[in-house]
Amino acid sequence: LLSRLPAVGTTVFSQMSQLAAEFGAVNLGQGFPDFACQPALIDMVGEAMRAGFNQYPMMTGAPPLRAAIGQKIAAIYGHEYDVGSEITVTAGATEALTTAILCCVHPGDEVIVIEPAYDSYLPAIALAGGVPVLVQMELGQRGYSVPWDKVAAAVGARTRLIVINSPHNPTGSVLRGADLAALADIVRGTDVLILSDEVYEHMVYDGARHESVCRLPELAARSFVVSSFGKTYHVTGWKVGYVAAPAALSAEFRKVHQYNVFSVNTPMQLGFASYMADPAPYLELPAFYQRKRDLFRAGLQGSRFELLPADGTYFQCVRYDAISDLPEAQFAEWLTSEIKVAAIPVSAFYQQGKESGIVRFCFAKQDETLALALQRLAGV
Amino acid sequence: LLSRLPAVGTTVFSQMSQLAAEFGAVNLGQGFPDFACQPALIDMVGEAMRAGFNQYPMMTGAPPLRAAIGQKIAAIYGHEYDVGSEITVTAGATEALTTAILCCVHPGDEVIVIEPAYDSYLPAIALAGGVPVLVQMELGQRGYSVPWDKVAAAVGARTRLIVINSPHNPTGSVLRGADLAALADIVRGTDVLILSDEVYEHMVYDGARHESVCRLPELAARSFVVSSFGKTYHVTGWKVGYVAAPAALSAEFRKVHQYNVFSVNTPMQLGFASYMADPAPYLELPAFYQRKRDLFRAGLQGSRFELLPADGTYFQCVRYDAISDLPEAQFAEWLTSEIKVAAIPVSAFYQQGKESGIVRFCFAKQDETLALALQRLAGV
Ligand SMILES: CSCCC(=O)C(=O)O
Ligand SMILES: CSCCC(=O)C(=O)O
Repeated sequence: LLSRLPAVGTTVFSQMSQLAAEFGAVNLGQGFPDFACQPALIDMVGEAMRAGFNQYPMMTGAPPLRAAIGQKIAAIYGHEYDVGSEITVTAGATEALTTAILCCVHPGDEVIVIEPAYDSYLPAIALAGGVPVLVQMELGQRGYSVPWDKVAAAVGARTRLIVINSPHNPTGSVLRGADLAALADIVRGTDVLILSDEVYEHMVYDGARHESVCRLPELAARSFVVSSFGKTYHVTGWKVGYVAAPAALSAEFRKVHQYNVFSVNTPMQLGFASYMADPAPYLELPAFYQRKRDLFRAGLQGSRFELLPADGTYFQCVRYDAISDLPEAQFAEWLTSEIKVAAIPVSAFYQQGKESGIVRFCFAKQDETLALALQRLAGV
Repeated sequence: LLSRLPAVGTTVFSQMSQLAAEFGAVNLGQGFPDFACQPALIDMVGEAMRAGFNQYPMMTGAPPLRAAIGQKIAAIYGHEYDVGSEITVTAGATEALTTAILCCVHPGDEVIVIEPAYDSYLPAIALAGGVPVLVQMELGQRGYSVPWDKVAAAVGARTRLIVINSPHNPTGSVLRGADLAALADIVRGTDVLILSDEVYEHMVYDGARHESVCRLPELAARSFVVSSFGKTYHVTGWKVGYVAAPAALSAEFRKVHQYNVFSVNTPMQLGFASYMADPAPYLELPAFYQRKRDLFRAGLQGSRFELLPADGTYFQCVRYDAISDLPEAQFAEWLTSEIKVAAIPVSAFYQQGKESGIVRFCFAKQDETLALALQRLAGV
């Protein structure tokens, strides 16, 4: 059978989680919390099920959840999406990203992807018949940044879409207002669309704010904005996300969504809708994770790992060149099997497997889990 | 924005459900039960959530659920799938169908689709860049049947896939052993694959058995077999299904699934896994729905609707030419707005909107709901 995705293997996240399980390693690889979500959220899902909300929801998402999403976006970012025509609930952020790509990228269209890049973007572009154009982030004193001049140079007549991601997985870097302004300059006057992966929107630290593309009307008007409930509410396995986009883009998105998954788990949607009535959980998330980030960074201070900046997400990247000259994948395997702490090689986020001597740890873990990992990493 | 799916509008099921709500009609249109699922199933999902199973499951599906699926298939159809490499849990049957098409249909490949056809097949083929080749079922004394000679004539050098569906939506017809034998004759010696939509597998009546393609090893070896938990367990809104296919096909399926949705709701998967320990719910389903079918048919006996055979699924098709010469879509709208019973026009299942003077009712409803609908339909 001729493959539609010949380059694709099992995602590095599944591989490393399996390796972690085999070796009894502390799993700081795949990004997910090892602590419980709020019992109230579970109760709300249970109530929806017992009240009989177990049949197809609306294809576009349960109305109370879309309303809650619209209110949250308006309150935080000041952009008013029409919840009837501009917000769609998805089967996790992955479905949102792939559906967005499938709905607007035609065979031969170019899509600009900034590396390191989350590993679903390129296969989705390949499925659409699109042509990826890769631009690499630069790593300087203050961490990773996007070279907008290179993005500008990559835009051409065939460019259909630019994929951006902030807070950024795996680097933990965060776009600032100046970055969005640079992006706006690049696309102004073109018909290039933007796919903005903002699944870590509620994890920006040190008092900075998340610069959603929807803060800038001229960017909002051409963007698919993707977020994730799993990441915000500590339930990555519930697989609910959403996309917000202007009506014309949402209409195309929904055509594909309707025939890709049709709709999304009703009880979970209604549970989130109730739970979102209180904004505290996401308003408190930066402080919650910043504490864990600081705890994790402090624990690595005396070690031979060199800490990179970690301005957002629940990931911490580290240089390990003082420890080993192994390639990243082997180093991550060695860490997992010998030191018993799993990590993700950043090379997995580059199409050509670029080596930077950097691995990624996930700090969305109980303090005890982090303490155990730090104890093991200290001796390396 | 140039559309990837210019022919696609809002699915007829959503349209008719909305119309039914507007007019306060009994909704026998979109296929879903209006009664509750078993409380035990809800309890099992609740237990999984409270036990902390809320993070990413395996990309391929939670192991206990894949094991339960494998056991069920072996017990009923006698085919042993390897649960590690041949069964994948999906975000509903729609995701399974679309992912199967995306993973094996290359641009320019032909896909044979038998009409009337569920409305997601053609958009999925279009997204893949495939070329649909349509063959129409024939309607005779004993109901709808597949003209296998025409299917055979449609197979050519570019044929990649044949999509079949039994029990069949919307006609309620059921393939028999002779049908599968005819299909096997057609594909023998070719490399044509089969996508078998069997979401109503547990709804075959009058003592007949469901002829899953996996009963025939030579068909199983080239088939994606799709099923749905929502339909079997009265929870269409939970959006969990699966695909069973030989390892080589499953490997390609999983490449696309991994980057389409990655994985499927963990608590629902574990709830189904526990619930499936008892086979009674699906073993009793034929009797449960046959009773409703018979009740619904008996109620229409004295009316001017002409009943077509209904051998499987929870749908009953009726001819209405003694009542009206309106086209099907208008007749269904009139039934909804004036008679206050919603139905689905069968023309919506034909690319060219072929008119047969037939609409589809869903009888997966409480007896009281059916009684109310019958009372309204009696006077038409
Ligand atoms: C879908 S599994 C990967 C989770 C994740 O986003 C990450 O670890 O980067
Ligand atoms: C996904 S909504 C349609 C439900 C269904 O399968 C039908 O009514 O035919």
